[in-house]
Amino acid sequence: MNNLPRSVTIIEVGPRDGLQNEKGFVPTERKIAFILALKRAGFREMEVTSFVSPKWVPQMKDAGEVAEAVISEGDPVRNFILVPNRKGVERFRKTKAKAAAFFVGVSDTFNQKNINRTTEESLHELAPLIKDLKAEGCFIRVCLSTAFYCPFEGRVPEEKTVRLAEAFAALGADELSVADTIGMASPDESYSLFKKLKERFPDLLLTAHFHDTRKMGLANILAALQAGIDRFDASAGGLGGCPFAPGASGNVATEDVVYMLERMGIRTNIDREKLAEAVDGIAPFLSRPVESADYRLRKGG
Amino acid sequence: MNNLPRSVTIIEVGPRDGLQNEKGFVPTERKIAFILALKRAGFREMEVTSFVSPKWVPQMKDAGEVAEAVISEGDPVRNFILVPNRKGVERFRKTKAKAAAFFVGVSDTFNQKNINRTTEESLHELAPLIKDLKAEGCFIRVCLSTAFYCPFEGRVPEEKTVRLAEAFAALGADELSVADTIGMASPDESYSLFKKLKERFPDLLLTAHFHDTRKMGLANILAALQAGIDRFDASAGGLGGCPFAPGASGNVATEDVVYMLERMGIRTNIDREKLAEAVDGIAPFLSRPVESADYRLRKGG
Repeated sequence: MNNLPRSVTIIEVGPRDGLQNEKGFVPTERKIAFILALKRAGFREMEVTSFVSPKWVPQMKDAGEVAEAVISEGDPVRNFILVPNRKGVERFRKTKAKAAAFFVGVSDTFNQKNINRTTEESLHELAPLIKDLKAEGCFIRVCLSTAFYCPFEGRVPEEKTVRLAEAFAALGADELSVADTIGMASPDESYSLFKKLKERFPDLLLTAHFHDTRKMGLANILAALQAGIDRFDASAGGLGGCPFAPGASGNVATEDVVYMLERMGIRTNIDREKLAEAVDGIAPFLSRPVESADYRLRKGG
Repeated sequence: MNNLPRSVTIIEVGPRDGLQNEKGFVPTERKIAFILALKRAGFREMEVTSFVSPKWVPQMKDAGEVAEAVISEGDPVRNFILVPNRKGVERFRKTKAKAAAFFVGVSDTFNQKNINRTTEESLHELAPLIKDLKAEGCFIRVCLSTAFYCPFEGRVPEEKTVRLAEAFAALGADELSVADTIGMASPDESYSLFKKLKERFPDLLLTAHFHDTRKMGLANILAALQAGIDRFDASAGGLGGCPFAPGASGNVATEDVVYMLERMGIRTNIDREKLAEAVDGIAPFLSRPVESADYRLRKGG
């Protein structure tokens, strides 16, 4: 429990990863208000939207409008836009965004079912896009999903995740967000993988992405902190489900993460009051109740 | 993350600590069936009921009947009955029980509001009862509530908890269950207090009792494990609320604790299938939905 970081960066993923899993369309002005409220709460890194096909993800059909409204010249916030392919990159270039996020599943079967490509094919498709954007001065975040467990393949070997991380590091990725997509990693597994990654990539930004499916979200964060991780994805209100675990909680809720970290004396620079305001603003537009402990305690039920 | 225990004892507190917080009366035969189902799941230590005044806790008015039905000669299970005072001890002596649990709040204000005595007065009242039962060959468990935080006094100094622990150790207590009654302890605080207690009382059974009020239940268990604790209170189905945090989750749910520990390679000797059967049997008689991740995943919502 010693040598914990004194401050931590929280990458707020609610507006993208969170809302993307919402069935009912959230009005564009509400998305924008949500993002702006989150910026007021102090986040300096955030996934704001996704340039996926509106055919596949209708929730993100207003991505261009959202990006236009929330990303301004000189914004101190690192606004990530998810770009799945070349078409996404072309849209990305028309925005003021300077930070792109790419996704790939460590598990072949998961990647195949998700985007109809093997992991290797995704890597080859993304490689030139990453190199180009990097050359244009963009910040590159790569999200490695199913880095621990795959709903189809089960346990994903650590070495497989490390090898894929190496491939993206070689392409010039600035950040790797390593995700326990189905919320099955146990704290010892989180500690072990993140310790390996931290040793292997001392100069890369390494981010841990946990789900609270098994209520182990905060325990996994505690384990990753001990492995030297000081960047965590989290979703305001715990937005975002896991389509492979019906009824399960989604991303670990930002307000609960902030609460735990601040209580441990680890600075997040997030204003919890203002974060609560952001959550309250989006809550009425969600298909299911907000599940963070913070929200439930505030609402008394 | 090294030097974790290879096996852990879970003290199931659902039938007592859990049900005691239920407003609606749970039929006696259901309580008995619940306890017997839990015994089949493998628990070897359990709080089965409480000899409190039926005027104060009507839920426990059938405590005698429950004790009679579930405690038999030669039972391998350590069946705890909570005894708050001399009257409770007299009822206890008429049963086959060999293990008594006593409660006291480390915080004076909490103890005062709960049982109308200062902590010191409780200690003086319980001292002769503990000595007598101990002399009669009984196992003595002492539950120190508000060992970290008090809803009225705030942070409880570690030294205050250690001093009270010393007093009960001197009286011959076999076990101290140290509780974060309002679910506010952060993992570093849990680690710190349990490390101190472990060093101070190397020969005493030390048990950690956490609530999931702030979703930190499993993170606190992880921290306590690292401090050398290998005994945890938990409540099947997460039964039991916290009257001071409306809408909050109750005790950390046994099935979620067992899941995490077993996934970490730490043996609990609990059969998760049979534990689920016990939870399913009691669920229809509860005033609120079962909140364990395990239950929700099994029910798909």
